[in-house]
Amino acid sequence: MVTGHIVPMPSIARRRSKAPAGRRERHRAETRDRLFQAALKLFAERGYQETTVEAITEAADVGKGTFFNYFPTKEHVLATFGEERIAIIERAVKAARSQSGPVLPVIMNLTTSLAGNFSESAPLLRAIHAAHAACLPVRVELQKRLRKARRLMAEMFALAQQRSEVRRDLPAAELARLTILIFHGVTLSWALIPDSGLRETAESVWGLIGPALAPPSK
Amino acid sequence: MVTGHIVPMPSIARRRSKAPAGRRERHRAETRDRLFQAALKLFAERGYQETTVEAITEAADVGKGTFFNYFPTKEHVLATFGEERIAIIERAVKAARSQSGPVLPVIMNLTTSLAGNFSESAPLLRAIHAAHAACLPVRVELQKRLRKARRLMAEMFALAQQRSEVRRDLPAAELARLTILIFHGVTLSWALIPDSGLRETAESVWGLIGPALAPPSK
Repeated sequence: MVTGHIVPMPSIARRRSKAPAGRRERHRAETRDRLFQAALKLFAERGYQETTVEAITEAADVGKGTFFNYFPTKEHVLATFGEERIAIIERAVKAARSQSGPVLPVIMNLTTSLAGNFSESAPLLRAIHAAHAACLPVRVELQKRLRKARRLMAEMFALAQQRSEVRRDLPAAELARLTILIFHGVTLSWALIPDSGLRETAESVWGLIGPALAPPSK
Repeated sequence: MVTGHIVPMPSIARRRSKAPAGRRERHRAETRDRLFQAALKLFAERGYQETTVEAITEAADVGKGTFFNYFPTKEHVLATFGEERIAIIERAVKAARSQSGPVLPVIMNLTTSLAGNFSESAPLLRAIHAAHAACLPVRVELQKRLRKARRLMAEMFALAQQRSEVRRDLPAAELARLTILIFHGVTLSWALIPDSGLRETAESVWGLIGPALAPPSK
């Protein structure tokens, strides 16, 4: 049995349960979330490639075939994990668009929270990272998500440029690419030598980079 | 047989051959370098954990036992790789100390070159990262080297602070930690989505961070 969530993120079940749903639907969402959390826990403990679907279903206390009712392959568990992060960026873009206030604090919160969500999960991060580095199909999915993240982040930087919060000598797409590269990278590097808080570290990195994004006249 | 060098770095043999040495010594250095390059090539092709010592000696065209005359274990190949990079930092510190000119350009060259050395080796980088992420003894050695790199980089930042090139509101040790985290991270992240030049990317990142390191009065 799996106790506790590996990552302090809204779980699939909890997010779904907000919608009105019958008992059957709720049960489905709960089972999917149990499989998801069990998989992440095992990835962190054993590594992604070393974790079998059977081990996941055992840990989640369901029949082996049940896994495939929720995830076509083991790769889809990582994809779900990545898509939750993309959904967080999408919500931030929506928030930035719908209000006329400053966008840069939204970008700052986003980058430091995306990193901070992992603060206590260095082993999980390392397992995911090893899978991305060693396994081509897993990496291809990551690349798709990173490109999507760049597009979303570029939208936010373009908004920030329109509102004169961010320098315009670099294209929004380039600012987005570099920001994602830096914060993705800091998360990866931290996982290999996690001797500080990840959120605090991400905030310190932002402390260096944030002012460098401001327009030169400021 | 191994043709060509995977990484455009000075090979062990070539660096050693500068010193006056007998034929025997030269032969030893050449064999060690051949094993080293063969190992890196195989790590990039197959992955670190999937590469056997036997495959390395076969590719280097030497007897299997020969490997252990040069490297106690396969891990020592990666350690050698890392130590070459530490040696580059040590030389930069020495250069910065021995001259009275600006230190910040030395730090810039160092960080962008350390990244740039990998520009054509995304598969090798990924193999090394997967090993660091998945294998504790390999990671422990990396952590030792990263701590050493931080101490060396902190020396350079302290010098730059003394020479009023770098802000003093952050300790040199913290500037060193963040700089290494950022550039190590950029290298890790780039290897997962290598759709740009690594050196150019590292230079663009420095373009953001360099000015943020300057004292506020400047």
